[in-house]
Amino acid sequence: MRLRNKPWAAQVISEHPEIVVPNPAECKGRWSELFNNQHPIHVEVGTGKGRFVTRVGEKHPEWNVIGMEKYDSVILTGVERLIESPQENVKLIKDDVEKVTDFFAHKEIDRLYINFTDPWPKNRHEKRRLTHEGFLKKYMEVLKDNGEIHFKTDNQGLFEYSLASLSQFGLKLKNVSLDLHNSDLEDNIMTEYEERYVEKGMRIFRLEAYR
Amino acid sequence: MRLRNKPWAAQVISEHPEIVVPNPAECKGRWSELFNNQHPIHVEVGTGKGRFVTRVGEKHPEWNVIGMEKYDSVILTGVERLIESPQENVKLIKDDVEKVTDFFAHKEIDRLYINFTDPWPKNRHEKRRLTHEGFLKKYMEVLKDNGEIHFKTDNQGLFEYSLASLSQFGLKLKNVSLDLHNSDLEDNIMTEYEERYVEKGMRIFRLEAYR
Repeated sequence: MRLRNKPWAAQVISEHPEIVVPNPAECKGRWSELFNNQHPIHVEVGTGKGRFVTRVGEKHPEWNVIGMEKYDSVILTGVERLIESPQENVKLIKDDVEKVTDFFAHKEIDRLYINFTDPWPKNRHEKRRLTHEGFLKKYMEVLKDNGEIHFKTDNQGLFEYSLASLSQFGLKLKNVSLDLHNSDLEDNIMTEYEERYVEKGMRIFRLEAYR
Repeated sequence: MRLRNKPWAAQVISEHPEIVVPNPAECKGRWSELFNNQHPIHVEVGTGKGRFVTRVGEKHPEWNVIGMEKYDSVILTGVERLIESPQENVKLIKDDVEKVTDFFAHKEIDRLYINFTDPWPKNRHEKRRLTHEGFLKKYMEVLKDNGEIHFKTDNQGLFEYSLASLSQFGLKLKNVSLDLHNSDLEDNIMTEYEERYVEKGMRIFRLEAYR
C-alpha cells in the first residue's frame, strides 16, 4: 500500500477513543465488557482503511468486529468513516499485528481475518508474511478451539506459500477457492482492494483454516 | 478419458507378463525381489497410457516405477510403448486403485503420483475422487513414513477439493503451485494430458503432500 503522510491523523485518532481503543492491552480478556455484550469477537489483522470491518459489522450486528492496523495515515480513513456513521460493534486498534497476544487473551477470538495482506515476496522477508508460522502461533493462542482463520488475497505466491504454511502448522483447510468471484461462495464481503482487483478481472484466492 | 474398445488389448497384456504384472497380489511386500534391487518404489495411480511412468523411469533409473490403470484399452498404449522400448525399472498393474492395499505392503511405497485424474465433479461421486479420504487411508497404509504424494491436475474444482481433503486428513502440503508452467519448479515430468493442456495455455495445479 502506498502511504501518504497525514500529519493530522494521530490527532484525529486520539480524539476518538470510542473508535480507536486507546489502551488495547487493558482490554485483554475484557473485550466483552467494552462491547457490553457476549457476542462473538472477530478480528481483522492488517485492516487497512477499515472498509471490510465496517461492512462486516453492518451486516452482522450480532458480532463484535475489531480491526488492527499499524499506520496512522491508513487507519485514518476507517476512523473518518466511523465518525460519519458510528457502529457500536466495530472498534479499531492502531498497532502492530505482532502484538495481537498483548491485546487478546487465550481463546478470546472467534474468527480472524487476513485480507489482501502484504505478500513480502522476497525469501528474506518470509517472517513478515501474516501467514508465517510466527504469526500463526500468536493467532492460535488467541483463537478459540473452534475458531477460524479466513484468508483471501489476489497474490498467487502468497496464497501458495500460505497453503503450505497453514497445513504445515497442522491447520486444516476448507472452502478453498482459487477464483472466488467465479465460484458459488455466498455472503462474501469485499474489501476495497478486492473491489478494484475484481473490476480488473483479477483472480482472488480464498481459504478458511481451522484446528 | 474417452474409451475406445480394443478387443485385442487383453491378449497383448497377457502376452507380456514382464510388463504387466499378472498377479500383483503375489508381489505384495516383495516388489524389490521382482525388480531385483532395493531402489525406491514409486507408484502412479490411474496411470492412463503410461507416458508419465515411462518418462520417470527413463529419467530416474535409480527408481522403480509402477503404474496402475484399470482399463485394458488405455493401458495398452503403455504396454506397446514398453514392448518397443523395454524398461527394466517400469512395471504396470492392470487393476483398480481401490486394490492398492492388496498389491502393496505396509510402508512399501516411497512416492505416490496422482496425475490428471477424473475430477468426478458431482457431489454424489465424491468418494470416487482419488484424493477422497477413502483413498488417502489406503495410500497412507502403503506409503513409507517419509513418503510423499505428488498430485497435479488441470481441474480447479478437484484441486480445491483436494487441498481441503488432504489437509483434513492431517497431511501437510509443500511446493504448492497454482500455475505450474509459469512457476520455477524444475524437473517436472509431463503426462500426455499435461502436454495438451499446456499447449492450450491452461493452468496446471500441483502440490506435494506428506505426513
